[in-house]
Amino acid sequence: MIKIAVDAMGGDFGPKPIVEGCLQALKKKQFVPIFVGKKSEILPLLPKRYRDKISIVEADDVISMDDAATDAVKRKESTIYKAIELVKNGEAQGVVSAGHSGATMTLATLRLGRLKGVLRPALVTFMPTKNSRKSSVLLDVGANVDSKAEHLLQFAVMGGCYAEDMFGIEVPSIGLLANGEEKSKGNDVTKAAFKLLEGYKGFKGNVEGNDIFNASCDVIVCDGFVGNLVLKASEGVASTISGLIKEYIRKSPIAITGALLMRKVFKLLKKQMDYAEVGGAPLIGIQGCVIVGHGKSNPKAIKNAIFQAINYVDTGVNEHIVQRLEALKNKEI
Amino acid sequence: MIKIAVDAMGGDFGPKPIVEGCLQALKKKQFVPIFVGKKSEILPLLPKRYRDKISIVEADDVISMDDAATDAVKRKESTIYKAIELVKNGEAQGVVSAGHSGATMTLATLRLGRLKGVLRPALVTFMPTKNSRKSSVLLDVGANVDSKAEHLLQFAVMGGCYAEDMFGIEVPSIGLLANGEEKSKGNDVTKAAFKLLEGYKGFKGNVEGNDIFNASCDVIVCDGFVGNLVLKASEGVASTISGLIKEYIRKSPIAITGALLMRKVFKLLKKQMDYAEVGGAPLIGIQGCVIVGHGKSNPKAIKNAIFQAINYVDTGVNEHIVQRLEALKNKEI
Repeated sequence: MIKIAVDAMGGDFGPKPIVEGCLQALKKKQFVPIFVGKKSEILPLLPKRYRDKISIVEADDVISMDDAATDAVKRKESTIYKAIELVKNGEAQGVVSAGHSGATMTLATLRLGRLKGVLRPALVTFMPTKNSRKSSVLLDVGANVDSKAEHLLQFAVMGGCYAEDMFGIEVPSIGLLANGEEKSKGNDVTKAAFKLLEGYKGFKGNVEGNDIFNASCDVIVCDGFVGNLVLKASEGVASTISGLIKEYIRKSPIAITGALLMRKVFKLLKKQMDYAEVGGAPLIGIQGCVIVGHGKSNPKAIKNAIFQAINYVDTGVNEHIVQRLEALKNKEI
Repeated sequence: MIKIAVDAMGGDFGPKPIVEGCLQALKKKQFVPIFVGKKSEILPLLPKRYRDKISIVEADDVISMDDAATDAVKRKESTIYKAIELVKNGEAQGVVSAGHSGATMTLATLRLGRLKGVLRPALVTFMPTKNSRKSSVLLDVGANVDSKAEHLLQFAVMGGCYAEDMFGIEVPSIGLLANGEEKSKGNDVTKAAFKLLEGYKGFKGNVEGNDIFNASCDVIVCDGFVGNLVLKASEGVASTISGLIKEYIRKSPIAITGALLMRKVFKLLKKQMDYAEVGGAPLIGIQGCVIVGHGKSNPKAIKNAIFQAINYVDTGVNEHIVQRLEALKNKEI
């Protein structure tokens, strides 16, 4: 059975939502969780029947959001370090952490190593689209800055394998994020990446910022600096709109009644935009499976991040990536 | 009185909304419009009392969205070319065009020339924020790709002058768009720009994508490739949310009633997010005033773009930029 190491301490709200999310996941899927953290804090959160069954690896150092990611390698007693060591030693197949993202990515890359042929791992996220049943796979959203063209090519390959295996899309359509659809648009790096991607199966050319949300492509590729900005700006717009709606509603009793009648609509919308439905962002391209959760993860987010880790391991996306990159190198595709 | 050359043909919907917007502007402010376009199409749109008063410069070539911006310089009979020539020859002080943005920016830069000391002009836009009375000035949103650090420094200076003169902010706060607030965050270019900006009056350091919308900075600086993506992605999120709300409402009669009661809220929200309230994006750093309108501009957008042009000329922001860059060069600031 798949073993998932869960960093129990990393989130902004301590171990409670993380343990709770893990227990919710256990009710739905078969897997073996291994908590990494302070036994004294985790044990009281477990119902009696689980106390003997779930193993806890003691780790009392928690890398906080203010710590530098570069120090992570030295902090061998930290929850993230120990969780990743479990995968390195074959004691677990996947890690879920809602802790310091930079530290998690650094440790995952340095301790587990990259997959054969991978130049740089990338952080993958899923963006909601106009089509309420479809998400766009967007990468890289923050593992790298100053990506080169060949990195973007590999992000396209890895994102494509991910969409094939995790979403069952036979030939995922792939778009390159740029400032215009025409081939002539883009910056130096994306123009060079366009040339490398031309002829690659599923490549549709350049796509623009708004295309992320119109379901026109399954996979959208960009540099991590750009992806981070686009992701954060998108979150900012969504939260601004919801904030303004609330502000305006408060000012009018009629609107409050209206909002009550629209409750179901807002609930559906929230579900559609809610990162907790996705759970976390996989770091793709490493030897193993590491899901980077949001610091503010609630139990639902942790549950879904665990499901993601299980599927990631189950579908063998890593082997797929290695084969695909090998074939690309040998010009077989 | 200020003369504004209005490209009457460039928008997606022909001359009607443009002429209408200009007439609306005339009712509110004193200025002299000069229409550039096909007389035979413009004249019938003018009320009789205006027909002798408003001059029309005949131009029957319209650069379409599918045309390459690089050809714009050769198309001397085009509406955009002729409108910009009016400024070059001193017959007008500003241009408003809802036509081909690339062509407008190319012609403005090449025919009018850059302001003294300016390396690259930048396209400025205004982003709504959580604070319903405040917008962020964001630049560059598409005039340049592959900006260097010294370009970003100049964008900060130009954006600052703009915020001072147009919004009356004494010392505008300036943020550098990056993938994290810490000084260590950013890509090679933004890290170098950070060093150049350190100590510049109002500079607050790095800001993240979501900060664009939380009113924490008056001016936010980025490369045009990045700015274009952030702008388009933000538009995409807003339109996806409004599309999903409409889709969900349609499915429930109760929600339809709720939406009716919330009509005022949605109206306020629309006003807050509506580009037409802003009108257009000034191209800053050129010798003159050129406002780049949205292809889909409605009369209100044209009216506001004209107001923007009038204010731009009135406040003397161009002279201010030249002085500020000179002072910066001489290390007086």
